[in-house]
Amino acid sequence: MTINLKNFLSDKSKLSKMGEFQDLKPIDGLEISSISADLYENGRDDLTLFYFREGANYATLSTTNSIISESLVWNQKSNKKSLKGLLVNTKNANTFTGKQGLESLDKISKNLSRILTIRESKNKEGVSETVKIKDLIFASTGVIGETFPEEKINNSLQDLVDKLRDDHNKLVWTKTASAIMTTDTKPKMAYEEIIVGNKIIKLAGIAKGSGMISPNLATMLSFIFTDADIASNLLKSLLKKAVANSFNAITVDSDKSTNDMVTIFSTRKIKIGQNRNMNDPIIQKFEVALKNVCLNLAKQIVVDGEGAKKFVTVKVKNAKSITSAKRIAFSIANSPLFKTAIAGEDPNWGRIIMGIGKSGESIDKEKLVIKIGDLVVAENGKISSNYDEQKLKEYMHWGSIVIEVDLNSGNDFFDCYTCDFTHDYIKINADYRNPT
Amino acid sequence: MTINLKNFLSDKSKLSKMGEFQDLKPIDGLEISSISADLYENGRDDLTLFYFREGANYATLSTTNSIISESLVWNQKSNKKSLKGLLVNTKNANTFTGKQGLESLDKISKNLSRILTIRESKNKEGVSETVKIKDLIFASTGVIGETFPEEKINNSLQDLVDKLRDDHNKLVWTKTASAIMTTDTKPKMAYEEIIVGNKIIKLAGIAKGSGMISPNLATMLSFIFTDADIASNLLKSLLKKAVANSFNAITVDSDKSTNDMVTIFSTRKIKIGQNRNMNDPIIQKFEVALKNVCLNLAKQIVVDGEGAKKFVTVKVKNAKSITSAKRIAFSIANSPLFKTAIAGEDPNWGRIIMGIGKSGESIDKEKLVIKIGDLVVAENGKISSNYDEQKLKEYMHWGSIVIEVDLNSGNDFFDCYTCDFTHDYIKINADYRNPT
Repeated sequence: MTINLKNFLSDKSKLSKMGEFQDLKPIDGLEISSISADLYENGRDDLTLFYFREGANYATLSTTNSIISESLVWNQKSNKKSLKGLLVNTKNANTFTGKQGLESLDKISKNLSRILTIRESKNKEGVSETVKIKDLIFASTGVIGETFPEEKINNSLQDLVDKLRDDHNKLVWTKTASAIMTTDTKPKMAYEEIIVGNKIIKLAGIAKGSGMISPNLATMLSFIFTDADIASNLLKSLLKKAVANSFNAITVDSDKSTNDMVTIFSTRKIKIGQNRNMNDPIIQKFEVALKNVCLNLAKQIVVDGEGAKKFVTVKVKNAKSITSAKRIAFSIANSPLFKTAIAGEDPNWGRIIMGIGKSGESIDKEKLVIKIGDLVVAENGKISSNYDEQKLKEYMHWGSIVIEVDLNSGNDFFDCYTCDFTHDYIKINADYRNPT
Repeated sequence: MTINLKNFLSDKSKLSKMGEFQDLKPIDGLEISSISADLYENGRDDLTLFYFREGANYATLSTTNSIISESLVWNQKSNKKSLKGLLVNTKNANTFTGKQGLESLDKISKNLSRILTIRESKNKEGVSETVKIKDLIFASTGVIGETFPEEKINNSLQDLVDKLRDDHNKLVWTKTASAIMTTDTKPKMAYEEIIVGNKIIKLAGIAKGSGMISPNLATMLSFIFTDADIASNLLKSLLKKAVANSFNAITVDSDKSTNDMVTIFSTRKIKIGQNRNMNDPIIQKFEVALKNVCLNLAKQIVVDGEGAKKFVTVKVKNAKSITSAKRIAFSIANSPLFKTAIAGEDPNWGRIIMGIGKSGESIDKEKLVIKIGDLVVAENGKISSNYDEQKLKEYMHWGSIVIEVDLNSGNDFFDCYTCDFTHDYIKINADYRNPT
């Protein structure tokens, strides 16, 4: 087993600890609480509240699956400018739950807004805040088609609100990131800071997701919090750009959840001046930090992919367009034959050829150069004259594998991230069955 | 284990024997030969010649992968109206072989046409026929990117021609269908007859394919032969229609070969009259028989899918269009999560919901009715009130599983066929590695 000590990414076990290396700090204006609402019936935390006493700007992106969770249906009707809270439940996707699912959210939000408003009225320090039901959004992850556990959640809300805290150090973030997990094996966290003038702007993010998880299917959720005062419409533009090359650049098994959701919240605590736009240097600095947080979380999801033993980067470069590069990258990364070859540590470049062609993009075979790691395997329309099976086999033992497809046909590129396809994927998704 | 004796398809072990139940007969005007050219270096037959002494009309369809085998490149330049022969090799895909691959075909076709022409000149019974290189087409299946074995093939051509025979009974057909196999576990054959006036028209077909096969990837090949004198352009229309609901309606692992090829040949021995078209009753009768042969062979490929233990039919009905029905059917059938659930005998309808939505087609949730076997699992936007987990679990033990998605939004439908995703798929594609 060769480990490239110079390259952090070469060792999957290190990569999976990426989040653990970072010391997440509290975001001013955000309170967090996680408890067990007994949804899993084993005492684990399964209900989480993120609360913004003084409101938060926000932007959210959700699944393109044409069947979506009732929680996402609810969110579409929420206050577009400023929110007070996000309630996250696990174990139940609130998808294909009919009217019951949506009506439950209505009852839960009425109850939660009432409890929060009472809490605020007792607050002696500041102005008392009224929480309205449109100030609340939901995220759900878990089984499709089971009755939404309205009663259990409603009965837990008082306790959840009582336990809100704003001193969320690394330990609290870890507890929170764990509370939103389903079959994930590790909590996923990322953190960045940027300095603007004499102020420190913080970005803290958590995520969950590990393939489309058994026993039915689950979801990628990610919530990112910042104290920088950025308007909601600008947050939306920033989030779209960051997601394009992070959460939208990963694939575990090509399946797409009904519940996916990535949301960024700004507590508006740190003023950076009005009327900023995407070309502003401060916003561009923020954009880089946000991309780092998103990519870090996205990679953690891939590393924790169901049954994954290897982290794979598929780089497509010198393409005619980003769309073309992306199609080719995903065509390779989603191929079960490619992914099983990686699992088998087989430098099987014929399957990369197949994946490239399967994309439907027109390819100039003579210009195509394919590398596995630093080793050229194919060029000039045939196997490379420097092809070295022995060196390739050694490389395939690594925990992180990089495939590079150089089309030599343009200037655009796209990198995507995936994992291998192992016996454990089948085991998790076929052999395992929760009693229902 | 419940076996529905009324339903032949309910038992996968019976389904896999479909071809064996049929007694394939010789097609007048066709000669066949299969030998070992030592491509596999273990003595098995790996080179096959189909020869039409008096020529054959034909139509061929090939892969839509944008990188294709040099054999398919050659075929595009062949005689469009009438052919003399088809040479099939296994073990080498002749893909990404650079100029060497195409030049090899040139040399092989020159040699083969010479040998065949000499054979004809010795023929005392009929008119001597000259075979030209453009009268020959090729099919290749096997490893990508390895040097095409020109010399081994060229050295075997005389022996191959010497062994041509026209008395191809069931045994010869079985030997031939076996000679074109790579990792298939069973030869695939189908046969139909139709009676036109006082004549019997025969259709005999063979196929190979078992997923995109290790050690690199392989291919679906199918060759169908008939004695009915049908013009090449009409054969093309008939083949396109037959393939749409057979070979183009199956998926093992969603991967697409660089070498796929389906070809029909007519030896023109049985005259059915000139100027027939698609609306002609005789042609329509032929069309039904051709569809049966294609669907039969396509199902045999799925049953022999790598690691497959179950045969799965996904029926999408009452869709807005065939395209929409097809997208939804394949979105389900290609989902690794759906396929692992089938392997795990888990009536996991949440994954069917996910697959439907993942297609991107707009869906009216309230109208959607999903059945597993005869059992309704979801309707009216939620789990069915008649949902019976116990009955569903019993059904999931069957060897052949039918999923029905009723969209209640139109009049079009599409059925597709797939298999489950098992540990053996991973084993075949990841753990197994041919020494190269």
